[in-house]
Amino acid sequence: MNDNKEFVKEITNIEKDFAKWYTDIVLKADLADYTDTKGCIAIKPYGYAIWENIQKYTDEKFKKAGVKNIYLPVLIPESLLEKEKDHVEGFAPEVAWVTVGGCEELDEKLCIRPTSETMFSTMYAKWLKSWRDLPFIYNQWCNVLRWEKETRPFLRSREFLWQEGHTIHATEEEAKARTMQMLNIYQEVIEDLLAIPVLKGRKTPNEQFAGAEETYTVETLMHDGRALQAGTSHYFGQNFTKPFNIKFQNKEGKEEYAYQTSWGISTRLIGAVIMAHGDNRGLKLPPKVAPIQVIIVPVALHKEGVVEKAQQLYESLKQHYRTQVDLRDNYSNGYKFNDWEMRGVPIRIEIGPRDIENGVAILVRRDTGEKITVPINEIAQIIEKLLADIQNNLYCQCEKRNSEKTNIATNLDEFNKVINEKQGYIKAMWCGSTECENKIKEVTGAHSRCIPFQQEHISENCVVCGKKANTMVVWGRQY
Amino acid sequence: MNDNKEFVKEITNIEKDFAKWYTDIVLKADLADYTDTKGCIAIKPYGYAIWENIQKYTDEKFKKAGVKNIYLPVLIPESLLEKEKDHVEGFAPEVAWVTVGGCEELDEKLCIRPTSETMFSTMYAKWLKSWRDLPFIYNQWCNVLRWEKETRPFLRSREFLWQEGHTIHATEEEAKARTMQMLNIYQEVIEDLLAIPVLKGRKTPNEQFAGAEETYTVETLMHDGRALQAGTSHYFGQNFTKPFNIKFQNKEGKEEYAYQTSWGISTRLIGAVIMAHGDNRGLKLPPKVAPIQVIIVPVALHKEGVVEKAQQLYESLKQHYRTQVDLRDNYSNGYKFNDWEMRGVPIRIEIGPRDIENGVAILVRRDTGEKITVPINEIAQIIEKLLADIQNNLYCQCEKRNSEKTNIATNLDEFNKVINEKQGYIKAMWCGSTECENKIKEVTGAHSRCIPFQQEHISENCVVCGKKANTMVVWGRQY
Repeated sequence: MNDNKEFVKEITNIEKDFAKWYTDIVLKADLADYTDTKGCIAIKPYGYAIWENIQKYTDEKFKKAGVKNIYLPVLIPESLLEKEKDHVEGFAPEVAWVTVGGCEELDEKLCIRPTSETMFSTMYAKWLKSWRDLPFIYNQWCNVLRWEKETRPFLRSREFLWQEGHTIHATEEEAKARTMQMLNIYQEVIEDLLAIPVLKGRKTPNEQFAGAEETYTVETLMHDGRALQAGTSHYFGQNFTKPFNIKFQNKEGKEEYAYQTSWGISTRLIGAVIMAHGDNRGLKLPPKVAPIQVIIVPVALHKEGVVEKAQQLYESLKQHYRTQVDLRDNYSNGYKFNDWEMRGVPIRIEIGPRDIENGVAILVRRDTGEKITVPINEIAQIIEKLLADIQNNLYCQCEKRNSEKTNIATNLDEFNKVINEKQGYIKAMWCGSTECENKIKEVTGAHSRCIPFQQEHISENCVVCGKKANTMVVWGRQY
Repeated sequence: MNDNKEFVKEITNIEKDFAKWYTDIVLKADLADYTDTKGCIAIKPYGYAIWENIQKYTDEKFKKAGVKNIYLPVLIPESLLEKEKDHVEGFAPEVAWVTVGGCEELDEKLCIRPTSETMFSTMYAKWLKSWRDLPFIYNQWCNVLRWEKETRPFLRSREFLWQEGHTIHATEEEAKARTMQMLNIYQEVIEDLLAIPVLKGRKTPNEQFAGAEETYTVETLMHDGRALQAGTSHYFGQNFTKPFNIKFQNKEGKEEYAYQTSWGISTRLIGAVIMAHGDNRGLKLPPKVAPIQVIIVPVALHKEGVVEKAQQLYESLKQHYRTQVDLRDNYSNGYKFNDWEMRGVPIRIEIGPRDIENGVAILVRRDTGEKITVPINEIAQIIEKLLADIQNNLYCQCEKRNSEKTNIATNLDEFNKVINEKQGYIKAMWCGSTECENKIKEVTGAHSRCIPFQQEHISENCVVCGKKANTMVVWGRQY
């Protein structure tokens, strides 16, 4: 047990300093590291493998939904960025500019894409001729750069990896349906794969994407009661198709502007997984996204037959599950148990000489710590069930926390009191004015998360101004 | 047949102007397009799907070979780039510099990675402690930027997509073995997946990667007899580990510098596929990498039951092969046949009312133009065999061309005559001096492709200076 204590000491207590706990986990679970490029991280194999699993799951859903992948330039000429007024206002302050190429000063500076609406729009204008070409449902998996002042690994990094889907359609209805379709896919990714329940709704105009007509979001709640925007889907109407001249000939032979959407999720989701599920022992990875689902730790490595039996088990399990066997001879069992718990591996198998004699092994669940002894020849089926249980349990734990951390407020004092005491989501009525929204931000530090699709009637009046209000907004402090 | 002629007219004749033919194919087969960012292309869905197939195949091989994916920053501080003398000399002239970030002039400018040896080395120095940590076998799939003056889609684009693997090892032997192992994987990718035979060997010092001790290459020969370097694998020795201070404690407790490798293939391979296999009718895609392996073109769409039968066939085939059905009602059959031939789809299925009556369909091979009538209920098995045949035939066609276009030379006049008349590879003896190598470049425009692993004794003396020579080099003009 000594090992245990020594080891856990290295991680900051989750209740004492959540921010420090987060950074400890990122570094010690070997997910990422800082680099010499300020504000940019190195995503290490264990962290990148999580991203690969997210990509694979998402890309399969995309392909079924008719999405095609393409790749557009990382550099965007200044003149393109400037074509849509709100968009350039939103993004110009946070872009990096290339001013020199191949030893020469450039005539026109190029920004590194912070997002690619302008580049997609330019190409779409070139490619679109007739209604027969529509829709374009294209996506790219790529890096983007936003010159953030304060950065945190995964959550807010100057460079991050994401997918950005951009579509154009012949009609408003079709574009709006696509906006929702992709939001629903994000819900699946986050709920089904990452085991984090989402709050789905529309952003208030204040929180909309720069240039969008409507922004929809899937919001998640972290361990400390702060909210994290996990994915967004935007309906642009003709805000970009007009300045970018994205026109087509309709069936009647007349020219029309197309209707546009965009949608994205990013490596930020890795931060969400850490903060939604982790505890004082470290990471807890949902089995579906875990790079290692089962870790085999042979006990008493030096005893005859133990390594062989562990290897044998590994060979049989790895065909069904992402499995590894820990044969390191310079660490104690206790250290190894802690290490794999810290790295969030859903199931640990312990197997020693006596277990082998009895034809059994011990399974330990990362989520509950529960230990069960199981016959070796039934282990594969038991693991299947156990992984499903763990996935489900992690989801339920979050759901429970969500409901515990969701409160209501009917006036600003109450709002402020509740958020200071309990953090979390606050449901409150809103009159629709930007002044009232700003007031809440100013007084309480909470942003509107969204206008949930599932509306409730909390009270008669706006939580700020007291005027009659019909819209319920969910608010919360955010990452 | 009218359709046919009209359509084919759009593509430049391959023998008349190969460069123009190439650009025609890139644009008309919908692989890529030019953008507003000079020297950078948009990779369209059909082109990107080829890249995805290359990635999938390669990444699986990598993972089996113990490679782990990571992601490092796209921006590299100037001071890092400057640490290895040869490397900075090689790359500094062709990088793009970020000098402004978030509206402020930067203290230190950042280059967009042209390759990431310096960034990997910096991280490896941080991560490496003991011999137990070794080896690091990491790779990233990413974009890179090189400020080329003359660009061509896929072949030489300012921005391109690639993978760059970087490894460090405890011993020279292990690092050298890894260099070869990865070169062999590239051979598999190019020969097995892309159906292009490679010439494998070591680069002359002149053609080595900036900073490498040894560079190995897989070279390919295109339709016009020019060579294309398709993949390279470098052994660095301690050239980077010393200036970057990548040290570890060996088993005896002493500090040692590690040994390093790097290796890469890129979207350039799409250019290789176009130029190795294409003909006057357009692209010819090897079935293993083709985004669409089978295209079903129902003939007489308006006749009862035709669309239904085509759909039915599509549903059954798509489970085994990447299949599409062409239901466009605004193009003639002739146009469609030509269109899919131009896009290089390996097998076309034609099915019309009479075929349906007889329970047959017509299969047309893209590589030979051969047509066969087959019973519908045997079609899936016949396609399997046919796709394998086509894959194999494309490889053999290239092999045949390689041997036709490989010649020898024993003196410089002969060399010059042969390369002007026949292009292709020239085998000739070389004394090992850079002067002789430069002389060939100057007089004939040919670069040394490599010193092949399979050596032959062409003549006694160096093709340039006439001194005794034991090394056979293969030369050729290049892309």
